[in-house]
Amino acid sequence: MCQLLGMNCATPTDITFSFRGFSQRAGITSDHSDGFGIAFFEDKACRLFVDNQSAVESPIAELVRNYPIKSRNVIAHIRKATQGKITLENSHPFVRELWGRQWIFAHNGDLHDFHPRLSGRFTPVGNTDSELSFCYLLDKLVEKFGYHEPALNDIFTALKEISPQIAEHGTFNFCLSNGQALFSYATTKLHWIVREYPFQHASLIDLDVEVDFSEVTTPEDRVAVITTEPLTHNEVWQAYQAGEMILFQHGRPIKQAMTVVERLQREAKDPSLKRVTKADQY
Amino acid sequence: MCQLLGMNCATPTDITFSFRGFSQRAGITSDHSDGFGIAFFEDKACRLFVDNQSAVESPIAELVRNYPIKSRNVIAHIRKATQGKITLENSHPFVRELWGRQWIFAHNGDLHDFHPRLSGRFTPVGNTDSELSFCYLLDKLVEKFGYHEPALNDIFTALKEISPQIAEHGTFNFCLSNGQALFSYATTKLHWIVREYPFQHASLIDLDVEVDFSEVTTPEDRVAVITTEPLTHNEVWQAYQAGEMILFQHGRPIKQAMTVVERLQREAKDPSLKRVTKADQY
Repeated sequence: MCQLLGMNCATPTDITFSFRGFSQRAGITSDHSDGFGIAFFEDKACRLFVDNQSAVESPIAELVRNYPIKSRNVIAHIRKATQGKITLENSHPFVRELWGRQWIFAHNGDLHDFHPRLSGRFTPVGNTDSELSFCYLLDKLVEKFGYHEPALNDIFTALKEISPQIAEHGTFNFCLSNGQALFSYATTKLHWIVREYPFQHASLIDLDVEVDFSEVTTPEDRVAVITTEPLTHNEVWQAYQAGEMILFQHGRPIKQAMTVVERLQREAKDPSLKRVTKADQY
Repeated sequence: MCQLLGMNCATPTDITFSFRGFSQRAGITSDHSDGFGIAFFEDKACRLFVDNQSAVESPIAELVRNYPIKSRNVIAHIRKATQGKITLENSHPFVRELWGRQWIFAHNGDLHDFHPRLSGRFTPVGNTDSELSFCYLLDKLVEKFGYHEPALNDIFTALKEISPQIAEHGTFNFCLSNGQALFSYATTKLHWIVREYPFQHASLIDLDVEVDFSEVTTPEDRVAVITTEPLTHNEVWQAYQAGEMILFQHGRPIKQAMTVVERLQREAKDPSLKRVTKADQY
């Protein structure tokens, strides 16, 4: 398994505090040491740093901890390999261009018997179930919308349909961003928090570091942080429910949906809709 | 205009010596200070570092100068903006996935009245003529070969047809790699050299630094370096002829073609083939 970290902000914000705690889990407070990656959007483009070294040892991770890159959308990942070798091509996050924007994806989980047919428009470079699921998601978006970029709401609705189908193959927690907003989905484990005015102090779990956000922010700042396991002691993190999808923009959730629950409710009303699923494992 | 640096090697090699000299041109020995980028392949995947700061000032460039990343195919670029703002999305090299490989492209030159019709399969994220020409090249490859990866020779033949058509719009010097090999093309200025056994010492033009390659290499090493302007005093750099395309693999040129000359020769034999071109500017 792996761990995810996402950030979506109202104003460009650096992630050094959260990343310092998160990257400790790549060998010090946990054993997610089979590569790391982090992507920072600037408008439609992004900087993507990946390494097949651990986020504790990698000089690239050291740069990220010390060089405050400000961004409205960030996705990071530390890997504990389950499928695919420890190579650069298997390091998350993965990137593809669609509709003249970069899209970034990172996955926590494990998919089994997942062999979707791809059009060829997006092809995995490595051999992880994660990159395959990313290519499949984008393939389905192109199948639905063609080469005309849809509105965020329409993308959300489409992802809400596709994601539970992939999740039938196992654990499927992900963060996905196109630089405009951050889509997140969890079948087993993901947490989120919004930090906003009046800001408080926060104390990392993985490292003896505290920050008083009220000293380093303005009232216009607002930051949503999404992570596999909470990063701080003294803040209230919200756990995703099984099958929950949340779209973050401007540092707050703007759409939430309970995809699996919705489907189970539909199935309960009309048993003919029922498919063979592993929904009980969510 | 911009400057290009490419490297293709028989064995994974670090580019720190050449990049140290090259990056001086981003503000010290020349004024190419509007962003920089460098991509290192590892098999089919690559690490891409881009910054809209100059390669002299960027902490990311400093990391690249000091952290010897070994690779068989490297493409770097320092930018002096002619078209498109100084933003991350306009920083070369550009990356796209095709046939399950990352493709990396960097351009030196300026294209005018270049408004090709794109299929939507590859769309520019920024607004440079360079990224547009990259998307057009890849679009044409997909149009010709579909979603089945062709052999390198076939890609070379296709690029040899497409590149002069783009070059009718201006200056078109580029380096392109898919991690297997490095394609290069020049209409005005590009130089190359092969360093191989018995290795010699080399002395940078842009910085008072010398290296004796015989001390840091083995007989199996062989490195081709491609660059806009020669990087060293005491080595013999080959200048590309106008319209020359060279494919490098395993650290040496494996195919060379004089695309423009070939076309002019064909046209001389059969004047009905003649099109209105700006061939005299090559």
